[in-house]
Amino acid sequence: MKLILISKSKRICIAYTKQNLQITQKEKYRLLDLELTIKPLDIEAGGKYIVVLNEAWSHQKGIYAGDRVQILKGKHKLIGIVDTSDTSIKPYEIGIFEEIETAYGFKAGEKVRIRRVEETTSPKLIKEKLDGKKLSFEEIQTIVKDIVTRRLSASEISAFAVSTYTRDWSMDEIADLTISMVETGEQLEWTKHPIANKHCLGGVPGNRTTLLVVPTIAAAGVAIPKTSSRAITSPAGTADTMEVFAKVEFRSNELQKIVNEINCCIAWGGAVDLAPADSAMIKVLNPLRLDPVPMTISSIMAKKKASGTTDLIIDIPYGKETKVPTKTEAKELSKKFEKIGRNLEINIKVLITEGSEPIGNGIGPILEARDVLKVLERREDRPKDLEEKSLKLCGELLKLIGKGDYKKAKEILESKQALEKFKEIIKAQKGNPKISVEDLQLARYTKEITATKSGKIKTINNFYITEIARRLGCPGLKDCGVFIHHHVGETVEKGQKLLTLHAKSKEELSETVSYLSNNEPIKIN
Amino acid sequence: MKLILISKSKRICIAYTKQNLQITQKEKYRLLDLELTIKPLDIEAGGKYIVVLNEAWSHQKGIYAGDRVQILKGKHKLIGIVDTSDTSIKPYEIGIFEEIETAYGFKAGEKVRIRRVEETTSPKLIKEKLDGKKLSFEEIQTIVKDIVTRRLSASEISAFAVSTYTRDWSMDEIADLTISMVETGEQLEWTKHPIANKHCLGGVPGNRTTLLVVPTIAAAGVAIPKTSSRAITSPAGTADTMEVFAKVEFRSNELQKIVNEINCCIAWGGAVDLAPADSAMIKVLNPLRLDPVPMTISSIMAKKKASGTTDLIIDIPYGKETKVPTKTEAKELSKKFEKIGRNLEINIKVLITEGSEPIGNGIGPILEARDVLKVLERREDRPKDLEEKSLKLCGELLKLIGKGDYKKAKEILESKQALEKFKEIIKAQKGNPKISVEDLQLARYTKEITATKSGKIKTINNFYITEIARRLGCPGLKDCGVFIHHHVGETVEKGQKLLTLHAKSKEELSETVSYLSNNEPIKIN
Repeated sequence: MKLILISKSKRICIAYTKQNLQITQKEKYRLLDLELTIKPLDIEAGGKYIVVLNEAWSHQKGIYAGDRVQILKGKHKLIGIVDTSDTSIKPYEIGIFEEIETAYGFKAGEKVRIRRVEETTSPKLIKEKLDGKKLSFEEIQTIVKDIVTRRLSASEISAFAVSTYTRDWSMDEIADLTISMVETGEQLEWTKHPIANKHCLGGVPGNRTTLLVVPTIAAAGVAIPKTSSRAITSPAGTADTMEVFAKVEFRSNELQKIVNEINCCIAWGGAVDLAPADSAMIKVLNPLRLDPVPMTISSIMAKKKASGTTDLIIDIPYGKETKVPTKTEAKELSKKFEKIGRNLEINIKVLITEGSEPIGNGIGPILEARDVLKVLERREDRPKDLEEKSLKLCGELLKLIGKGDYKKAKEILESKQALEKFKEIIKAQKGNPKISVEDLQLARYTKEITATKSGKIKTINNFYITEIARRLGCPGLKDCGVFIHHHVGETVEKGQKLLTLHAKSKEELSETVSYLSNNEPIKIN
Repeated sequence: MKLILISKSKRICIAYTKQNLQITQKEKYRLLDLELTIKPLDIEAGGKYIVVLNEAWSHQKGIYAGDRVQILKGKHKLIGIVDTSDTSIKPYEIGIFEEIETAYGFKAGEKVRIRRVEETTSPKLIKEKLDGKKLSFEEIQTIVKDIVTRRLSASEISAFAVSTYTRDWSMDEIADLTISMVETGEQLEWTKHPIANKHCLGGVPGNRTTLLVVPTIAAAGVAIPKTSSRAITSPAGTADTMEVFAKVEFRSNELQKIVNEINCCIAWGGAVDLAPADSAMIKVLNPLRLDPVPMTISSIMAKKKASGTTDLIIDIPYGKETKVPTKTEAKELSKKFEKIGRNLEINIKVLITEGSEPIGNGIGPILEARDVLKVLERREDRPKDLEEKSLKLCGELLKLIGKGDYKKAKEILESKQALEKFKEIIKAQKGNPKISVEDLQLARYTKEITATKSGKIKTINNFYITEIARRLGCPGLKDCGVFIHHHVGETVEKGQKLLTLHAKSKEELSETVSYLSNNEPIKIN
C-alpha cells in the first residue's frame, strides 16, 4: 500500500502525521521474536496473508493455527494468519502463501522476523460503538488503520461494519470514517485539473449512464477518470458492461497513462487499491444485503476523494425498489453527501431522479452495451430515456465546473464527438474500436413475453426485472438478459411484445418463464 | 458431527425431524458438479475446512480462492473454503487440509464431488434480526444449522452473534437458540441418573469451586460429569487449574468410561463437540469483550443440556468487576436461567452470591491448585472462603436432587472422602494421585507487596488482580500468579504482606510492580 499525501486539507495532513507517530510508538506486549527462513508455497487463499509454521515447534512457542503474527522484514511490517504443518515446514522455516509473495516480493531463503501482534484498542473501541458511543476521529482512524493492516479479524471487521447499520452515526463520524478510509489506501494523482467524476446510486437496472457521460465530458475537454464496480447483486455493473468493449482491469500507473492521453477512462475500481478499508467493510455488508447510509456515503466519497476527484455529480434515484425508497429520504441523503463533500473539499452537486422503472431497454452486459452504442451511434431505435438522463448529468457536471451545460453536452453527443471519444477509450483500454451494435451478438435461446391485455403500462418492477436477468445468467453470462420493449406510460395492445428473454440454455429459459408466471414485472392498467 | 436424539421433550423431537426434511429438500441453485481426486496436504488452518484447487482450472469453472464449495462423498456433506494453487494441485485434484482429513478420514486417491454451495436464507434472517424482528424457532434453527455446517462466513456469524448484544432477544428466542445449539452438536449419554452439574458465572478470580464440588458430590454417590473452559481473559480457567493435576482433554467415549467408573470427571469442554454453534459465536464475542445476556444463557444451558445434565446449580456472583454488576441484575438473570431450565427439562437452582473480591488466596493455575488441595487435605492454612462457598453449592445441589444437604457435604469434606474422590479423578485422568501441596512448586522470582498504612481492608479489585496475574504470565505460565494474603474486612498493620507476586523472569516482575504503582488493587481504610 502506497500512501501519497495529496490533499491540501489541513485535517488530512495532521491525521497523516499522527498515524506515522502511532506506527513508531511501540506498544507494550509480551515479546516473541524469532528469525525464520522463507519458503514460498504455491497456494493462494483469496487475498488473505497466510503463513505456515512447523506444528510442534510453533506449539512450543505458544503459537497455534489460526493465530496472527507480525512479520518484519526490512521496512516491511505485515500481519499474517498462521497455518501449521508437521512435515512440509521445518522448525525455523516460514511458508508463505502467494498473496504475501506477490505483495512484498519475499524470496525463498530470505530471512524474516516474526513477533506477536501488538495489542490494539480497536476491539474495545468497536465495543464502545456497539454500546452507542460517539467515536472520535483518532478512534475511528485507529479502527480503520487496523482493518487495512489486517490486524482485525473478519469477525471484528463485521461487528464494526454492522454498527453502521444498527447504531447512529453522526455526520462528524461519517466524515472521519471517510477521511480515514482515504488516507489508509492508495491515492491517485493527476497532472490535469479539474478532475470530474460521477456516481449513480444503485438499484435501477439498465442505468448505464457512465458509458455516455464519460466520453461526453472528456470530449468537452474535462478530465474524468472513472472507476466503476462489477455487479454484486445486480444483473450487470458498469465495469461488466464496459468489459464487453475493452479491458477494465488496470493498475493506477496504467490508468494515469490512459488519462494523460485521452482525458478519461472507464475501469474496474477493484484493480486499484483505493480505500481498501471500505472494500473490507462492504464485503461484510453485501451478503447480508445491508446498505447503511453511513457506509453508502463513506464508501462513495472515500473512493472519489482517493481517485483525486475535484468536481462530482451524484445521482440519487428514488423509488420503491431502489436503494432510496422516497423523495424525502433522497433529499436527506443528498444533504449528507453535500456536507461530506465540503469536508473533503470536493465540489459536489446531487441530482435526485425518478428511479421507479428500469432505464434503457436492455438489462444484461451485452444488451446494455448495445443500448449505449445505439445512443452514441445516433440510431433511430436508441433508448431515449437513457440518453436524456445522461445528458442531464453531463449538463449539471459541466455547469458545476463552469465548462458548459446541457446544450453543449447534447451538441457533443449529436455531432458524434462522444462516439469518437468512446472509441478512443476502447482503443486505449485494448478493445476493438471498430465495434458496432451489430457485432454484439446475444445468446441464442429467446422467448417473447407478450401483453395479456391492452392498456397503458402502469409499472415495471425493478426487482423482478433484476431477478429475471439474474436467472437468465447475468452478469456471468454476458450475452444473456432481458430486453424491455416499452416503458411506463406507453400504450400496448394485447399480444404485443413486452419483454424478450435471451438465454444460453433452454433450461434457464424455461426456469425464468416459470418465475415470470408467479412474478409479473409489468402491470398494465 | 454425531446427532443423537436423547431428549424426551416433544419440541426437540419435532425440530429434529424437520431438520432432516430440510436437508433432503433440494434447493434451487445453478449446478456445478465435478468429480475430483483427493490429495491430502499436511497443513492445518486452526479448525477451518480448507480445500485447494488448481488455479487456472478452477477459474474456468468460475471458482475463485475464498469461495466456498460443497464437498460430497458417500454420506458426508461438508462445506470447504477454496484456496488455489497453480503447481502443487492438478486439474481435477482437490487438496485437503488436515482438519478435513481428521474429521472425515478422506484418503489420497479417493473421489469426492464438489458442488456450489446451496443458497440459504440465513443472511436474510440475520438482516431481519438486525432490523429488530423477532425470529421464529425454524428461523433460528436455520441460522444455527448453517453456522455448524460452515455455510456461513465468519462475518455472517459475527453479525448474528453481535445481534444478541445490540438487539432485544425474547425469552422464546433464547430458548429456541439454546435448543438449536443442543441439537446441532454431540449429545452425551449416560447410563446413570440423575446427572448433576454446576456452573459459576465468571469474573471472580480464584473461584475454583468446581475442583471441590465435583469430588464432594461424586463422593455422595451422585454422577457429576463436569466439563469446564480454559481461561480466555481470566488468569486461569477451571480446565487450566485441573491440568496442574491431570490430563483434561478427553473425547466423549473416554469421558463416558471415566464417569462410569468413578461417577465424575473434570475435563476441558473444548475436546468434546457440545453445542459447536455456541463455540463459534462465543469466539466472535470474546475479542470484543461482549457478554450479552442471551448468549450467556444459551451458551451455558446448551452445553449443560448437551452434556446430559438433569440437575443443575448455577452460581451468579455479582459485584462491580464481575459479569453481573448488581444484585438486581443477578436476580433478573436468575429468573431467565430458571425459565430456560424449565424449557429444557433441567431441574435448576440459581444461587446469587457476593463476588466483589477474589475467592481463595491464589490466583494463577498452580496457586489455585494449591488452594484446592489445602482444602481437600484439611490444612490449617486452607482458604476458608473457597471452602465455605463450595460447601454451600454442594449443599444446594444435594438438596435439589434430594440426596443430602450442606451438613452432608461438610462431612464428606471433613472425613477426606472428597480428597479420596479427587485422587480417583486424578488417577482416572492419568495424573499422579500422590500429589500434595508441597509438590506444587511456584515460579522462582517473587516480590512482596506490603501495606503502606495500617487499617481495615476496604476493597480488593477483581479487575486489577486479574490484570496483575496476566502480566505475570497467567494462564500460559502455570507456576506464576499472585497470592492474596488478606480478604476484605481483615485488619492489617503497616508493612504487613498484602500480596506475593510469582514470576518466571525479573522483567515480568518489575513490569508488574510498575503496573501496581498506578493501579492499587487493595484499598485500606
